[in-house]
Amino acid sequence: MNYRSELSEDLVLRQNRLQKTMQSMGLEACILSTAPNVFYMTGKVYNGFYYLPAEGEAIHFVKMPSDMDIHNTIYVRKPEQIIDELAKLNLKLPETIAVEVDALPYSECLRVMNTFKVDKASNASVILRKQRSVKTNFELEQIRVCARKHEAVYKTIPSLFRPNMTDIELQIEIERQMRLHGSIGIFRSFGTNMDIFMGSLLVGENAENPSPFDYALGGAGTSPSLPLGSSGEKIKQGDTIMVDMAGNYTPWMTDMTRVFSVGKTLDIAYKAHQVSIEIHNAVMDMAKPGVACADIYNLAMDMVVKNKLEFNFMGTRQQAKFIGHGVGIEINEPPVLTPRSKEVLEPNTVFALEPKFVIPQVGAVGVENTYVVTEGGLEKITIFEEDIIEL
Amino acid sequence: MNYRSELSEDLVLRQNRLQKTMQSMGLEACILSTAPNVFYMTGKVYNGFYYLPAEGEAIHFVKMPSDMDIHNTIYVRKPEQIIDELAKLNLKLPETIAVEVDALPYSECLRVMNTFKVDKASNASVILRKQRSVKTNFELEQIRVCARKHEAVYKTIPSLFRPNMTDIELQIEIERQMRLHGSIGIFRSFGTNMDIFMGSLLVGENAENPSPFDYALGGAGTSPSLPLGSSGEKIKQGDTIMVDMAGNYTPWMTDMTRVFSVGKTLDIAYKAHQVSIEIHNAVMDMAKPGVACADIYNLAMDMVVKNKLEFNFMGTRQQAKFIGHGVGIEINEPPVLTPRSKEVLEPNTVFALEPKFVIPQVGAVGVENTYVVTEGGLEKITIFEEDIIEL
Repeated sequence: MNYRSELSEDLVLRQNRLQKTMQSMGLEACILSTAPNVFYMTGKVYNGFYYLPAEGEAIHFVKMPSDMDIHNTIYVRKPEQIIDELAKLNLKLPETIAVEVDALPYSECLRVMNTFKVDKASNASVILRKQRSVKTNFELEQIRVCARKHEAVYKTIPSLFRPNMTDIELQIEIERQMRLHGSIGIFRSFGTNMDIFMGSLLVGENAENPSPFDYALGGAGTSPSLPLGSSGEKIKQGDTIMVDMAGNYTPWMTDMTRVFSVGKTLDIAYKAHQVSIEIHNAVMDMAKPGVACADIYNLAMDMVVKNKLEFNFMGTRQQAKFIGHGVGIEINEPPVLTPRSKEVLEPNTVFALEPKFVIPQVGAVGVENTYVVTEGGLEKITIFEEDIIEL
Repeated sequence: MNYRSELSEDLVLRQNRLQKTMQSMGLEACILSTAPNVFYMTGKVYNGFYYLPAEGEAIHFVKMPSDMDIHNTIYVRKPEQIIDELAKLNLKLPETIAVEVDALPYSECLRVMNTFKVDKASNASVILRKQRSVKTNFELEQIRVCARKHEAVYKTIPSLFRPNMTDIELQIEIERQMRLHGSIGIFRSFGTNMDIFMGSLLVGENAENPSPFDYALGGAGTSPSLPLGSSGEKIKQGDTIMVDMAGNYTPWMTDMTRVFSVGKTLDIAYKAHQVSIEIHNAVMDMAKPGVACADIYNLAMDMVVKNKLEFNFMGTRQQAKFIGHGVGIEINEPPVLTPRSKEVLEPNTVFALEPKFVIPQVGAVGVENTYVVTEGGLEKITIFEEDIIEL
């Protein structure tokens, strides 16, 4: 079977799953317009409204592009026209509807709700993010393809490094390799405090700098308008270089962090890096369907405390309170691995685990891998040398 | 005077201007949390809430980063704490407030409004976008610095081109030059249908492909998850290469498009390109403070019709209905140059003019420049060879 027919079968599967959820919640319709959700439901990105009734076919109310090739496309200029179009089709106006309230701007969302004459909408953002966190086999296959390219790019890193480079100069060469390997460039993340370019590269003391964004580690950045990651400082002997660049080679991403060092670095850095690897191994031993995400966090934290590394864990001057997250069309999907997470691992959930340490004057260390939850436990998706790689 | 003291004087100016607007609208407070507006008001990006009363000092309610160096910073975990903090400062709760209703997600916006116990908020998105469209001298200086780097990058393009390259391969080399010249990478645009990576490069037939995004031209893209721009096709003899890559070398952007050709191209392409240049010249002759944006559009359209190029103007299979837009911290600021625009040019407005044509089987042609509106007319900011440059 070819890609196109596999995709269209998978789209039916996704739509059926969403309708089943809608039916169980008593929802008569769901309306989506953000790129990640429209893409997930249709395999395309369009400017308009994906309208799904609890039973029957989806309708695509589209502003652009002008060359839609999907069945059931109706061109509209504004959301208010949807009402007339539904009437023409003899479809009744839904009384309960789910809208992307966590992603659509307030004024746009209100306009959609007013169109459907509802005061309150169910949260389609939560419904879709929950569904998307459990992948189909088609999606898993895309993630595996993505991982192979992610690995191929990381393999080029030793050949890109030159003595006396700055962190941003090395990052730019990695970005170029990413693009040559098919990275789409834009890094899809959910929420309002998630600015980032193509990923994060952290070298030396800059790893301690706090950032305003909700990523695992910070960095000062090279501009006050994007205070994150590389800062433009020269890479020095003994520094670690943490590479956490995007794995967006297919629409379903992988997340992977590896650490390089310029010559040898401090013993404490090797030790902390080893603890990160041991946390991965311990999580691989215990994680399986039914395991609580909070238990994963707590297992990791126990190992950190036992090794007296809690002041280095997930940052120094500012410490992140999570050690992993779901990954897919967006880089920050559910579940989130926090001490108070209520979520439980489900089969076909894909998540990244990133126990990291910041070592003052050295940089960041630790490994990040992407895993699929299978009935038998975790399958590691990102396969690449895990020790600190000396340049 | 150095950058830092010039910036802090400018921030006082911006705050005074916003407070004057608020007073004239009877607004007691304004609360901002999106990166472009927080950056505009503070010179920094933080995760939290910039709170400005109609009189007196701003207060920064901050979640992250942990190392804020701005006077009047109060750390909070959630918006609801703002109320207690205002009470501690003996500040009364505002009854009228402006919130970023066009940018904040519905659920976040509602939470802010509930915190302040208001059912209705004024539109801080509109207020800030209007204010930001009229630049301060400090901002104009940043835009000029940006233009010099934008020009320097375009100067490298002939040396980057190799026969038999694909469009995306050429774009990747331009992206690398952009980053080496200080581009921050992320391309700030306003609104929900504005996905783009580092700009647009359109070659040959791909220029005709419609896209779902609200940019001047389209292109198929290389992935269904980002259907815009380069499509991965080989660049052929006679093709035009339209380069419209981001000018984000300072936080205030420039927008500039230039066209290259592989050898000679068709006469119709040269002719249409010349009409674009003539439109620029005609607009430079008539535009000044007080001129209606709609009149600029109509002037351009008259010239297009007179030259019988209306079926090629701003696309073929899909045609954009604007020929220019304000530019600054975001690429799509007010005013917008459309036939029905109600806006009028004001001194210190910065806008990009982009009359473009798509020529079937050849590609896109036309020039885009960024202009500042001065009392005496337009000042062209982006200075670079405007004819089609043969490679």
